[in-house]
Amino acid sequence: MVSGKEVAQSLKWRVMVPGGSSVRLEMESGPVDREWPWLYHLVLAAKLKVSGFMKRAWKIGADDPRKAVHCIKVGLALTLVSVFYYIRPLYDGVGGTAMWAIMTVVVIFEFTVGGSLYKGLNRAIATLSAGALAVGIHWLASKSGETAEHMILGSAVFLLSSAATFSRFIPTIKVQFDYGITIFILTFNLVALSGYRVDELLELAEQRLTTVAIGISICLLVCILGCPVWAGEELHLLITCNMEKLADSLVVCVDKYLQEGGIDGDKEASHQNLQGYKCVLNSKASEDSLANLARWEPAHGRFRFRYPWRQYLKVGAAMRYCAYCIETLNSCMNSESRAPEYIKKHIRDGCVKLSLECSEVLKELASSIKSMKKSSRINYLVGEKNNAVEELLDAFKSLQQADSAPLLGSLPLVTVASLLIEISVRTDGVVDAVETLASLACFEPVDGEKPGLSKPPTSSLSSIVSQGEDAMKTLEHV
Amino acid sequence: MVSGKEVAQSLKWRVMVPGGSSVRLEMESGPVDREWPWLYHLVLAAKLKVSGFMKRAWKIGADDPRKAVHCIKVGLALTLVSVFYYIRPLYDGVGGTAMWAIMTVVVIFEFTVGGSLYKGLNRAIATLSAGALAVGIHWLASKSGETAEHMILGSAVFLLSSAATFSRFIPTIKVQFDYGITIFILTFNLVALSGYRVDELLELAEQRLTTVAIGISICLLVCILGCPVWAGEELHLLITCNMEKLADSLVVCVDKYLQEGGIDGDKEASHQNLQGYKCVLNSKASEDSLANLARWEPAHGRFRFRYPWRQYLKVGAAMRYCAYCIETLNSCMNSESRAPEYIKKHIRDGCVKLSLECSEVLKELASSIKSMKKSSRINYLVGEKNNAVEELLDAFKSLQQADSAPLLGSLPLVTVASLLIEISVRTDGVVDAVETLASLACFEPVDGEKPGLSKPPTSSLSSIVSQGEDAMKTLEHV
Repeated sequence: MVSGKEVAQSLKWRVMVPGGSSVRLEMESGPVDREWPWLYHLVLAAKLKVSGFMKRAWKIGADDPRKAVHCIKVGLALTLVSVFYYIRPLYDGVGGTAMWAIMTVVVIFEFTVGGSLYKGLNRAIATLSAGALAVGIHWLASKSGETAEHMILGSAVFLLSSAATFSRFIPTIKVQFDYGITIFILTFNLVALSGYRVDELLELAEQRLTTVAIGISICLLVCILGCPVWAGEELHLLITCNMEKLADSLVVCVDKYLQEGGIDGDKEASHQNLQGYKCVLNSKASEDSLANLARWEPAHGRFRFRYPWRQYLKVGAAMRYCAYCIETLNSCMNSESRAPEYIKKHIRDGCVKLSLECSEVLKELASSIKSMKKSSRINYLVGEKNNAVEELLDAFKSLQQADSAPLLGSLPLVTVASLLIEISVRTDGVVDAVETLASLACFEPVDGEKPGLSKPPTSSLSSIVSQGEDAMKTLEHV
Repeated sequence: MVSGKEVAQSLKWRVMVPGGSSVRLEMESGPVDREWPWLYHLVLAAKLKVSGFMKRAWKIGADDPRKAVHCIKVGLALTLVSVFYYIRPLYDGVGGTAMWAIMTVVVIFEFTVGGSLYKGLNRAIATLSAGALAVGIHWLASKSGETAEHMILGSAVFLLSSAATFSRFIPTIKVQFDYGITIFILTFNLVALSGYRVDELLELAEQRLTTVAIGISICLLVCILGCPVWAGEELHLLITCNMEKLADSLVVCVDKYLQEGGIDGDKEASHQNLQGYKCVLNSKASEDSLANLARWEPAHGRFRFRYPWRQYLKVGAAMRYCAYCIETLNSCMNSESRAPEYIKKHIRDGCVKLSLECSEVLKELASSIKSMKKSSRINYLVGEKNNAVEELLDAFKSLQQADSAPLLGSLPLVTVASLLIEISVRTDGVVDAVETLASLACFEPVDGEKPGLSKPPTSSLSSIVSQGEDAMKTLEHV
């Protein structure tokens, strides 16, 4: 709650004086303040609430000006439609059904082009098919007696509505045609129950189709021609941006754990970087919806028609798989390690190097997707990353040969190392997903690619451990 | 693709004979088959595809018969509305605007009561407020000249539509009033641009409000009276069911890793249990949407009005926090441990016991939420779980005193133990969230509760490790 004093302090009056400048009047307790303090505080509290709300709203628009542009576009499209109401010849042409044009614009205008196309095409197809079906059934019913007519129409309404509603529970239909089914049920019922004669109906249907077509055209023209927001491009940006965040948060997380006090200089920024993996954890819903809408979009910018958007979801899933591990790593970070200093020092370098190498791989992948070019360095970087894994394991090996390490105190440290190795394996999953994307989306190959530098086989924890063990056994035999 | 032979083998003809039984005719290659094989295969492939689709659809209905009931309810509501078109007095009463009743039913009838109430109330409020505003502006504009009238109406349409569209980007408004804003824009534009005189408008508004009210009433009556699906109850079930799945998958995961071949008996079931944590990982979107809809519902069943649904989201988040760790644990399971057999044996019992205790705690919490009673055993179980953590750490301690353990080979094993301890800490987070829920939702207290058995302090990995270290130091000093 806001106390009266704070409110009074934050409030200042500005009064315009004839010269054009404004004079600031410091608050004095006036008669309202003295007589009705509750009313006074109520008004002030409301004012503070409204100004806080306005500030938040302004921030939303300032952070992403495309949102403000979208609002102006909606207003523009509706104003264009209203022209049909003022220019008489047009008005007479489409009759009283011009309201369908307004309704169409209001309902199908979405933030992304994909969203508007999805709704527009769904609406067009559903209106056409449901209208045709309803006119057919109406004609059939009109050939029967009055009672039979009502029976036929009633059962058609019941059966078709139920069946269409059921089809919404089927996931593949739900994803692509949910809106279309609503419009199908709506149009079918409106036409079937309208009580008009069939010849009247045909005229009505023609009018309605014209107005819906006008609405869809205006909507799509405004949506595509004025600063379009493409769902596909949004997905592309989301994935690359998340990948960079993941790379940053991995490095910051390990740094913070192992090099205490080393990164104090820019605490705010490093905290933000640390939380980056959370964006990856929570972005599944956005990715799914953007990928679904992107499929409705035509070729645009660097993206051709039938671009493999589904593969972005697989890249996203592989990234999330990494993020789960970083999440666990992050909470290990909070458990203070009681390992002796010499062990910490021994392992620290290996861990930091591995996290840097993983992060390098992720950043290289992000820039490869961003530029839509195959990376010439990725095989080299993956190789370096795998070397870092081996070095970390070597550090453990030499530690063991040197000393009986106190296992209990090193538990958090060992866990961190082990999780880093797991993260390295999962990074390979991201590499694979991006490689599939590169081949499906025909990313430009790089000229300087050397065929000799092939990617070393990805190594899982168990295979690496077994290699290490074998090496040690050999040593023992020697 | 389906080859022709397979199709032919799977196809059989049934012919009804007058006796009432059916005779099965084995396929013979007929003239169609010989003359137009492509047509024949096309028809057969289509038939197979349709039958596969029907089977999947049947399974959806059979798995959750409420979905089939929902479809029948939608059909019923629409048939009831169509009564308005056949009974003349009613039809004349609401004039030609009866289509709004159909539209209302089609658009607001949702699977859950909360969904229908959300849309119904949003529609009612938005229609009322936008209608009043539009009539007011229309009246204002009609007092001016014709050009000024068009200017005023045009700019009102532009400004209000833009502002309303912008408000959808504000998260709190988006969540609760998204549908209402669409209807607000729609109604405002329809009324403002209708071109009627103000007195005509008032009559029109009255008619429209009546029909929308009729539509909402029919819709809500059918939705609530016939086998209602409450969003709140769905959320309650989802959370308890997910908690049980989490408990099961934790046990199965550890069992599978440590007791190889021990649970072969029921492979299918155990695989399903193992994947249970994935449901928790992926249920955030469902939980959010159910909690939002549940807030619109009145008191029902055991849930009072203003039941703390938001707290369920916190329980869900705490569970997901556990599930991240189980996910990591699950992939450690796949790395084969090269630890010597005696170490494995030494740690195994501790790990299995800890996983069982964590799982017991989760199951007790689930049953506490299910029965909406405070648990009398939870403090005891949490204590047992913490004891299991100590025992596991003791196992490491004694191992170290006995032998210089080969650290490298034990890496996966140490990681598993360490992750289990982390899962135990995160389970405490679930315990806390459920305790808050119990106090907010006023769960029934248990009579037999003993005040002496208070919950031991939750112990994080670091504090446990430090305790262990201190104990070892004492030992060393002795």
